[in-house]
Amino acid sequence: MNIKRSLPDFCTSYHDAVRAELEKVIDSSPSALRNMLRYHMGWQDEHGCPCRGESGKFIRPTLCLLSCEAVGGDTSQAMPVAAAVELIHSFSLIHDDIEDASYDRHHRPAVWRLWGQPQAINAGDAMFALAYQALLKLKEKGIADDKIAISTRMLSLACLELCEGQYLDLEYENRLDITVDDYLGMAAKKTAALLAVSTALGAYVSSEYSRVVDSLHLFGRELGMAFQIRDDIMGIWGMEENTGKSAGDIPRRKKTLPVVYGLQHSAGKGKASLQKLYAQEFIVGEDIAEVKRVLERSGARAYAENLAEQHYHRALAQLEATGLDSSRKAPLKEIACFLLKRDF
Amino acid sequence: MNIKRSLPDFCTSYHDAVRAELEKVIDSSPSALRNMLRYHMGWQDEHGCPCRGESGKFIRPTLCLLSCEAVGGDTSQAMPVAAAVELIHSFSLIHDDIEDASYDRHHRPAVWRLWGQPQAINAGDAMFALAYQALLKLKEKGIADDKIAISTRMLSLACLELCEGQYLDLEYENRLDITVDDYLGMAAKKTAALLAVSTALGAYVSSEYSRVVDSLHLFGRELGMAFQIRDDIMGIWGMEENTGKSAGDIPRRKKTLPVVYGLQHSAGKGKASLQKLYAQEFIVGEDIAEVKRVLERSGARAYAENLAEQHYHRALAQLEATGLDSSRKAPLKEIACFLLKRDF
Repeated sequence: MNIKRSLPDFCTSYHDAVRAELEKVIDSSPSALRNMLRYHMGWQDEHGCPCRGESGKFIRPTLCLLSCEAVGGDTSQAMPVAAAVELIHSFSLIHDDIEDASYDRHHRPAVWRLWGQPQAINAGDAMFALAYQALLKLKEKGIADDKIAISTRMLSLACLELCEGQYLDLEYENRLDITVDDYLGMAAKKTAALLAVSTALGAYVSSEYSRVVDSLHLFGRELGMAFQIRDDIMGIWGMEENTGKSAGDIPRRKKTLPVVYGLQHSAGKGKASLQKLYAQEFIVGEDIAEVKRVLERSGARAYAENLAEQHYHRALAQLEATGLDSSRKAPLKEIACFLLKRDF
Repeated sequence: MNIKRSLPDFCTSYHDAVRAELEKVIDSSPSALRNMLRYHMGWQDEHGCPCRGESGKFIRPTLCLLSCEAVGGDTSQAMPVAAAVELIHSFSLIHDDIEDASYDRHHRPAVWRLWGQPQAINAGDAMFALAYQALLKLKEKGIADDKIAISTRMLSLACLELCEGQYLDLEYENRLDITVDDYLGMAAKKTAALLAVSTALGAYVSSEYSRVVDSLHLFGRELGMAFQIRDDIMGIWGMEENTGKSAGDIPRRKKTLPVVYGLQHSAGKGKASLQKLYAQEFIVGEDIAEVKRVLERSGARAYAENLAEQHYHRALAQLEATGLDSSRKAPLKEIACFLLKRDF
């Protein structure tokens, strides 16, 4: 397997432009809030000093801009969308970390641990409001007002899906009877909806609304599913130093796809063991290895890897359905492959 | 003083229309979230049964629609704005109740107490996203796309101000050195900004952008200040059964205007007593009466009442500055007077 830690080389050119756009938006926020927001983005430490810590990979903005390029658009015109989807993602992470009681994010304390939950909830809200400010900069790029209104609507519908997904994720936390279908329905909303709107809007703002945009929307959605399932696999079998998560998904009893599959499909002693462990408050020590063993034996890992691959191929089929030239599709294909095979 | 518990009679006609618009938007949300959102609006109990409990007064939507009428607009066209500002207000209340650890809202448990903090944070986020969905219905009302884009921008700027105000409010919680100016700056953002955008947008969507809209924006802002200061007075000297708050502002050591004034302007034993009490975690029993005594003696109540009156008169001056006919201004004048004198 081709293991890479960072986005493909051709994506790095987008990184600086996206960051510049994001900085413009975030630095327009009230100074009191700016520190928390810049900290969360990984641009400064909690005292306001610039830091070289790991920041986000800008996966959603990158997909948005690649989608724009694929339809022959001008990426500078789509930059407001790129910033907006990253800000939506960031707002949801700030709130998710509180909701899931996650201590760390990218090897650093979550915002709520440094500023407290009340300020962190509020900082997430500000990030949410900034996403709309970012999007509305489409006006300065010469995008027509009707497109701006439709883009705003699409983005806020994706946010609603994201909230519904998060509702289900929280709701499933204390249940052992979640089916694989329940889980996939949740992931489609919580993760895939935002990736889908990223690829759709990247193409939409720089072309006429058409079948191509629809196909790229579905491409993003399928890729989002593959992405989430890969995330779930890494959360159990990935290396902690790569995933940047403080304790992995097993100790925190996260019911990700392999676990849901394992609970549904394992039998006998394995099933009983899994049920018992996931009914506890924490899973620690030797029990972590036991969970991994039961999951492997139930076929959960193979199932998840296979399903991620299926969504990846469906994503590629949607890319084909755009009817775009091969050269135009190549970068999207490459990033899709990268997202399927990443080790973080 | 003319004491009234409900909005002036001429406002009740708006109430049903606003509620219908809000129901349309909220009922378009994912069913899982809808229960929490409808509960928060006071439309159903936690089991989903319709309830006749007290719901919000729709002060912001009412101001929006009265402002629309004042410029000769068609209130049905401004209805999406009316719904949007109420949804923004509602989202902020759901989050504020968590951030301030407030147990009750309108004599009922806050959302977080029934569904837990994680789901309540997420429900607030959904309400936030719905506000934009509500606003974008302006398109169905025949409002031009450029106006929709500008309205969206104005609304999200008001949200940012609201977040900044909330940041300051939380930040001031553990400080005893807040000045009256600090406090008023915070209230301008936390409360007045949303009332200001309500009156501004109500006029803007149904008329050309002009000095009238600017004046109505400032009218809303001044009225918002009077409104907040009145709220602060009621939080200390109001009757609990009217304000609907579980314990009043003194037991929770809320540093509202009279307290900030009292800490800054009382002297000797009174100041020492106030400082001591507000450095504690709670204020209970006889100490509550002691706080009220010290505040009265420092002139805090008179100061706050006078300041509310000043903002009210400045609001009326802005209304005059619109140059609109007296008959057009009358309803806004009446609601302003009502908001200054309300006992809840």
